[in-house]
Amino acid sequence: MLKKIIGIDIGGTTIKMAVIDFSGTILSKWEIVTETLNQGERIPESIIESIHGELNKQGTPLEDIIGIGVGVPGPVAKGVVQRAVNLGWETMPLKSRLESGLNIPVVLLNDANAAALGELWQGSIKSVTNLVFVTLGTGVGGGIIIDGKIINGAHSSGGEIGHIPVVASTERICGCGNTNCLESYASAAGMITTINELIRNPKERVTNAEEIFSLLSSGNSEAQKTVALTIDYLARALAGIINTVDPEEIVIGGGVSAAGSALLDPLREKLKQYVFPQIREGLTLRQASLGNDAGVLGAAYESLQLYQAEEKW
Amino acid sequence: MLKKIIGIDIGGTTIKMAVIDFSGTILSKWEIVTETLNQGERIPESIIESIHGELNKQGTPLEDIIGIGVGVPGPVAKGVVQRAVNLGWETMPLKSRLESGLNIPVVLLNDANAAALGELWQGSIKSVTNLVFVTLGTGVGGGIIIDGKIINGAHSSGGEIGHIPVVASTERICGCGNTNCLESYASAAGMITTINELIRNPKERVTNAEEIFSLLSSGNSEAQKTVALTIDYLARALAGIINTVDPEEIVIGGGVSAAGSALLDPLREKLKQYVFPQIREGLTLRQASLGNDAGVLGAAYESLQLYQAEEKW
Repeated sequence: MLKKIIGIDIGGTTIKMAVIDFSGTILSKWEIVTETLNQGERIPESIIESIHGELNKQGTPLEDIIGIGVGVPGPVAKGVVQRAVNLGWETMPLKSRLESGLNIPVVLLNDANAAALGELWQGSIKSVTNLVFVTLGTGVGGGIIIDGKIINGAHSSGGEIGHIPVVASTERICGCGNTNCLESYASAAGMITTINELIRNPKERVTNAEEIFSLLSSGNSEAQKTVALTIDYLARALAGIINTVDPEEIVIGGGVSAAGSALLDPLREKLKQYVFPQIREGLTLRQASLGNDAGVLGAAYESLQLYQAEEKW
Repeated sequence: MLKKIIGIDIGGTTIKMAVIDFSGTILSKWEIVTETLNQGERIPESIIESIHGELNKQGTPLEDIIGIGVGVPGPVAKGVVQRAVNLGWETMPLKSRLESGLNIPVVLLNDANAAALGELWQGSIKSVTNLVFVTLGTGVGGGIIIDGKIINGAHSSGGEIGHIPVVASTERICGCGNTNCLESYASAAGMITTINELIRNPKERVTNAEEIFSLLSSGNSEAQKTVALTIDYLARALAGIINTVDPEEIVIGGGVSAAGSALLDPLREKLKQYVFPQIREGLTLRQASLGNDAGVLGAAYESLQLYQAEEKW
């Protein structure tokens, strides 16, 4: 039988799962509700049950699955999720819990890192090995890939680019406790705060990021200022990352990236101003292309890479 | 006979060379003048001659040398130095030139990257694998090491941290063509410009960075402002790097690092303000400890790593 991988993407409301072949084709996908009751204690069990049930239904024997990759919304070290606020986990030995219930090798990684790997594997047209993935959503996250491998970092905090400090005329306290993190300005929430600070009439206040881009397209000056400011913060932070790791591609994902060229075109222009000349010419900036599948694909890819590295020996 | 490595550090005025054993002990070192005449055409030949002569004098047979690592002041791709302004090189196939004259495997790397590897190998007390090396000298350079390997980047510009943009109230054009690069403020030259902008009496103008730190220790207010400003620019840029790659150590080298705790103590404080909390506690900031030997040691280490990787097979 054809060997396969399972990719899992654990989110605060749903857990996405997919059976994926070695070429990156999703053979089947399904999702379950995230049971966050009792500090998310039942999550591992619900994943195990769901995989058993789904494979059974498909007539796929467990032995066909060579490994499972799991993207989690929190830092990971040595198979243990350190803190995943959205799930209620403080320290969750997820790798050993899943492995003892399924008897298949499990690898964990941070969800932004998983999405980055997914984009590298299936989203890039040419064969890219160095990529920086940026999610602009409720927060700002990132995944840094060098030589095809995620930088997890010495304290499981590689790619925490939402917490790069920015210089701003206002002061915003970030959820992490620091002041004026990139996330406080370049996330959807940050952009909304920025535009509402500019709008005088309380009745015109904006409540979501889509609205900002729709106002922008109708020539609204507060929207123009907000987007220009956001892009400047973002471009400066990205230039720092780019001048440090010198990637081939910058990939922008997350809800705000749906704005497409209204976001990417001016960002590309600003990056030309801030990026080291030798890097500038050969750099690609693109929108994420895999949408919600990036996480399961990247998690599966991490598992596949480990499997293939072992096969070599 | 004990096998050895040769480390070479090519600078604009001298070329440093050393015979080094596998534990990182420098067995002998010497230097020659950099012949920059005629676009530095004779540099490879002068290195070959010097190695032959020196090994001969020591009674060390060429066969004892398993490899040569060479740090060069410019970007390197596929054994070719792309542009080394200080040496007069446009494109120099240094690897093949040296290999044909010595018949020993040669590996090239950027000089800041070599110094970074040297500090990783011989400068760190505990076993560190992720390290960010920063040189504060005439310019600002860097070397990023992840999992023991230098990030050379997709355009041979990994670690070009001197060109991270800073937000400043003045405008300075950088040698690279961009405006307000970190290097324009945090290099020795940048600090001198900053203090001289603050000093009103032209007779009191400062001409070197040492003077700034000597004024600082005597309570001079312009020196205090200059150092505080420099450290703020530096800390913000470093926080961006740290939140991206999450290293174990930040190592500060180069001429300005001679200021020691007058520079490092306030920098450590500022980093606490800007770095992601989860990284902050476990991060070490230290002064480079190898001085002028970092380059030859790191170049030799790169060669040793390649040799040992091949031995495995």
